Amino acid sequence: MAAADRWCVPDLQKERANCPFDKEEITQLIDGGEEKTILRRKLEKFFLQDPEFDDPVPPDYLSYKDKYENELRKATHMIRKFQEDEEIQTLVGEMEGISELVKTGNSVPLSAKVGLLRTLYIMQMIVIYGDGEIDRMNRSVADMRAKLKYNCYPITEMGHGTFLRGLETTATYDPTSEEFVLHSPTITATKWWPGGLGKTVNYAIVMAQLYTKGKCHGPHPFIVQLRAEETHQSMPGVTLGEIGPRLGMNTNDNGFLRLDHVRIPRTQMLMKHSQVLEDGTYVKPANEKLAYGTMVFVRVAICFDAARQLMRACTIATRYAAVRHQSEIIPGEPEPQIIDYQTQQYKLLPHIASVFAIQFSANVLFSNYNNMEQYIQEGNLELLPALHALSCGMKAMSSMDGTRGVDIMRLGCGGHGYLSSSNLPRIYGTQAAAQTYEGENTVMWLQVARYLIKSYREARKGRKLHHSVAYLTAQPASTHARNDVSNQALVNAYKTSVSSMIADTEARLQQFCDMGEQFEHAWNKCSVLLTQCAEAHTRYFVCEEFVKSINNYSGSDGVRTVLGKLCRLYLLYQITNNQGQFVRCGALSDTQLTILEEEMGDLLETLRKDAVNLVDSFDVHDKILDSTLGAWDGDVYNRLYNEALKSPLNQKDVTDAYHKYLKPLMKANL
Amino acid sequence: MAAADRWCVPDLQKERANCPFDKEEITQLIDGGEEKTILRRKLEKFFLQDPEFDDPVPPDYLSYKDKYENELRKATHMIRKFQEDEEIQTLVGEMEGISELVKTGNSVPLSAKVGLLRTLYIMQMIVIYGDGEIDRMNRSVADMRAKLKYNCYPITEMGHGTFLRGLETTATYDPTSEEFVLHSPTITATKWWPGGLGKTVNYAIVMAQLYTKGKCHGPHPFIVQLRAEETHQSMPGVTLGEIGPRLGMNTNDNGFLRLDHVRIPRTQMLMKHSQVLEDGTYVKPANEKLAYGTMVFVRVAICFDAARQLMRACTIATRYAAVRHQSEIIPGEPEPQIIDYQTQQYKLLPHIASVFAIQFSANVLFSNYNNMEQYIQEGNLELLPALHALSCGMKAMSSMDGTRGVDIMRLGCGGHGYLSSSNLPRIYGTQAAAQTYEGENTVMWLQVARYLIKSYREARKGRKLHHSVAYLTAQPASTHARNDVSNQALVNAYKTSVSSMIADTEARLQQFCDMGEQFEHAWNKCSVLLTQCAEAHTRYFVCEEFVKSINNYSGSDGVRTVLGKLCRLYLLYQITNNQGQFVRCGALSDTQLTILEEEMGDLLETLRKDAVNLVDSFDVHDKILDSTLGAWDGDVYNRLYNEALKSPLNQKDVTDAYHKYLKPLMKANL
Repeated sequence: MAAADRWCVPDLQKERANCPFDKEEITQLIDGGEEKTILRRKLEKFFLQDPEFDDPVPPDYLSYKDKYENELRKATHMIRKFQEDEEIQTLVGEMEGISELVKTGNSVPLSAKVGLLRTLYIMQMIVIYGDGEIDRMNRSVADMRAKLKYNCYPITEMGHGTFLRGLETTATYDPTSEEFVLHSPTITATKWWPGGLGKTVNYAIVMAQLYTKGKCHGPHPFIVQLRAEETHQSMPGVTLGEIGPRLGMNTNDNGFLRLDHVRIPRTQMLMKHSQVLEDGTYVKPANEKLAYGTMVFVRVAICFDAARQLMRACTIATRYAAVRHQSEIIPGEPEPQIIDYQTQQYKLLPHIASVFAIQFSANVLFSNYNNMEQYIQEGNLELLPALHALSCGMKAMSSMDGTRGVDIMRLGCGGHGYLSSSNLPRIYGTQAAAQTYEGENTVMWLQVARYLIKSYREARKGRKLHHSVAYLTAQPASTHARNDVSNQALVNAYKTSVSSMIADTEARLQQFCDMGEQFEHAWNKCSVLLTQCAEAHTRYFVCEEFVKSINNYSGSDGVRTVLGKLCRLYLLYQITNNQGQFVRCGALSDTQLTILEEEMGDLLETLRKDAVNLVDSFDVHDKILDSTLGAWDGDVYNRLYNEALKSPLNQKDVTDAYHKYLKPLMKANL
Repeated sequence: MAAADRWCVPDLQKERANCPFDKEEITQLIDGGEEKTILRRKLEKFFLQDPEFDDPVPPDYLSYKDKYENELRKATHMIRKFQEDEEIQTLVGEMEGISELVKTGNSVPLSAKVGLLRTLYIMQMIVIYGDGEIDRMNRSVADMRAKLKYNCYPITEMGHGTFLRGLETTATYDPTSEEFVLHSPTITATKWWPGGLGKTVNYAIVMAQLYTKGKCHGPHPFIVQLRAEETHQSMPGVTLGEIGPRLGMNTNDNGFLRLDHVRIPRTQMLMKHSQVLEDGTYVKPANEKLAYGTMVFVRVAICFDAARQLMRACTIATRYAAVRHQSEIIPGEPEPQIIDYQTQQYKLLPHIASVFAIQFSANVLFSNYNNMEQYIQEGNLELLPALHALSCGMKAMSSMDGTRGVDIMRLGCGGHGYLSSSNLPRIYGTQAAAQTYEGENTVMWLQVARYLIKSYREARKGRKLHHSVAYLTAQPASTHARNDVSNQALVNAYKTSVSSMIADTEARLQQFCDMGEQFEHAWNKCSVLLTQCAEAHTRYFVCEEFVKSINNYSGSDGVRTVLGKLCRLYLLYQITNNQGQFVRCGALSDTQLTILEEEMGDLLETLRKDAVNLVDSFDVHDKILDSTLGAWDGDVYNRLYNEALKSPLNQKDVTDAYHKYLKPLMKANL
């Protein structure tokens, strides 16, 4: 049924009337083209219309154990359904493989409430396509892939997360039996966090410190069987369990693993990069940097995922803001839609803009990543540090912006946003985790800063810089035409102000060194400022790519106009919120900022009219939104009420708990 | 056992050695004096050492229904225990009544995991001591108090929260029977959110639009019986239920209520402020502003609660940061405690400072509130608008700062902070709600702004202002000695910059009006800037009160010194994070900000040594912390592991879910 024909409440009908741009064009822009949109919708239809994926009781009411069981029911159904349908297999095959799956696949079938499957699925992809290519091994690839169908990838330990060199699990080679002995020597060596590890998978790729001929060669991956194929019981020497409830993603079966001198054949080391020969000789990887690939790839995925989560939250909050009426602007007049309040527009619209900002800049990162694969194959590695810095910055920024955005959307829905039935708490819990996993954000910022300081110092030595930091070589702009606030002027102001921040911070760093501090201590003493440089640099990158994407946009005028306004709003929002960095170095004047603030007021008012149509164009399926507040039809209050009626506590007027505990007390007190 | 004698891990032993200040002095400062500390500890001992309050299974593993039952078990036990112990009743009686209970009582017995009891307890207090004074009614106070023992206070409806005038529930007086007819005319009129309402209480004070003689007199409170005293069944015409799971506070039994022409005697209107006579004549309250009292009181409580929640989170994150070792500062050296990283210090210390900032400024608010009660009794009402603005601003700021602080503490604990067993997710869920309830924060900021603009305009007419906004009358400081960065200079810079922001915003507001906009529309167009003014003004207030509290501190030098450093850090943190407002108007120069940034680096390094001792001085009981990461002894990793072992899923190696779902699939795929 065409969207236009579907019933919705009058408030939303009004918002949707006379849309001045082609929503479908935006949908396809986000998906990556018309074919991708068609494919996504086919997959959505295939998976989401299947009643087996509906929850008989909303999972939030279930015990932790029953939640896992319900999740496993859906996950196994999905795998079976996928395996039994050749058309769908062909469709997914059409998606140019794994990389594309990350972009569009995040919405289906890996999304909605099937977190465990998503974990298993993604892990499998990483292992088979990434680090773990197993073609050097003494058994057929097909055989090993089949065994690894239900596997996970335990890297992090209780004592070590982002700092992988600190891992304590050991894999000691025994040449007499041609085996590795895997062992957890301490409590902190316990593998901790991997999704699916607790109760689900039967194989794992375990990251452990490789020891051979008495020497440690750092962390390497090993295939370890965790559970018997027939009985699913833990293998001898293997202690497994799940790590308990969390802020979100409570059905991922995050687990722990302890290994007590577990022996595996030599061939179960993944030897794509390094090797251990029969006699225990260690053969180094051809290039240490090759392992970057998977890491960068996962960070690309995190960016696209942040955009998807933010799309969901913005859709919910924007539709709700159009349906919700509250208070009064003019005393005595009817209560306005809350989206008419400027403060509400300020909550919604900058984050709708942020979806595009993340999407466009992540596209650039993704295309750099794809080029990198090619460069690596050609042995051309000098672009890797720039890509690495970019991937760290984009990972940290998109996960941070996504989380803040989701949180603001939740707050924008008032008390009802606090209800699980809004789905905003779950989206928050899922998105918030991305700030920590796959490289904790502060660590990411400091990686970016390291690249910036290094580049700045090279620039001062007259060396040519990668284009992403080329602005560090430019002379400080002969300030600025005082009233120029064009997009280009604002991007230039970013360049000036970030350059200035980096120069100041480098000077301070040097000052500490000159006073006799060791470089590393000086670095630590400057690290708050360094993270601020890294954030400002990455923001500049995102802003510039947003502007470029609009300038180069080849679609219709209507879409270009509305995206241009969003881009402008994004610039104004970011600049006014970080105005200090611009004023301090003279990159922008008080007068210019005042002009920007006034323009922002106008932009909010203009874009308010497009808000609902914009979130419609994100094309998030009602079953994926899964929200009482955000459904397409806007029938908010009936949904809230009907959803509450599903509570098991509401199935009886008087609870059992009353008879057990409250009644005796009330009687005693009468 | 004295704290010094209790075992802790060597890292914490080292941190605790040679503490340069008296921790107990800080504890008593926060509690409000030595007697209060003794009392609090007695209450903690009484309640927290009782094994009945331990959860046989951590509640996060239970189903929603079982969570409620477990909560009701503990709540009823607590009430009974309290009622049966005369000493404790006397102790609580010593606490200068209800107001003090809010300050210290928030930690015991109302805290820990007994949320429902807290709700019931506080509601009862509000009703009996606040709005609902029932001494005008035709029955004995004692009788009514007994009946109201298990009551709640349904104000908010599905369609209306903060905007109470929009409530739809009606109470129509019928003079023939001398009854009110209470009715929910629409779905949005459904009462929605009150704690305890769903399944627990049997009476309620319902807020409804009073209609008599055909005229509406706005919202008034009415006592309605919801459930039969004998059977606990819903009364005729009453539909009750609970509203489903939430981001946090899932055992509060938040409920909904629909009324279908329910009749109550005239005497069940609470007539402290307004009255309806037998014939239906409406008698206005003596003073409309009297109702402020309860509202301000609740906001004071929210401030103190935010400080308490932040103390908990800071304690957990700081102790963990002293125990956790990760990565390296100098390559090849042992992994440092993460608290040695400047970026980690920057996460922890400004929020430890924030605890004191909130506490000291809330003390001022609380003392103003207590004076207000006296002024009201004397009929002296001109101070109310200033107090109202202050209470709105402090409510919004403390709930916002508390939530952000808790979130940063969670992120500061990396992945483990995401585990429920850290207790940070629960603290976050509880604290985050305060941004929305009892006056949504954006609405609060706009209330503050209204007072600021009004005061500014009065100042321009030459009228004398309340001292909290007296700075608006001052001439812009003849700027500033360029290198003066004393506390007083920084407070002055706040005055200058907030004045400037308010003047600019008022000018813009006037400009819109001059262009023909209605004032209310102009107000809406400026409302983003207005909220920024309100926030800056409130921050100025908090900073100034922090400085004053240190200047007037009469305790030991050791405590004065460390609190002085925290105060300084707070100023630097707030100013550098909002530097734009200071530089734009020339209140601070780039040079001054650079000095502040450098000083902040030094302060972080100095205060790092005090961090563990500072959070120790918050004196949060291990059972209230309830955290694997934050316990006094720092035995983090064993706790994490042992807590995970409690998971019901870990009681069996192979789950039932495996046999049901995974096994058939695995077999089919072999």
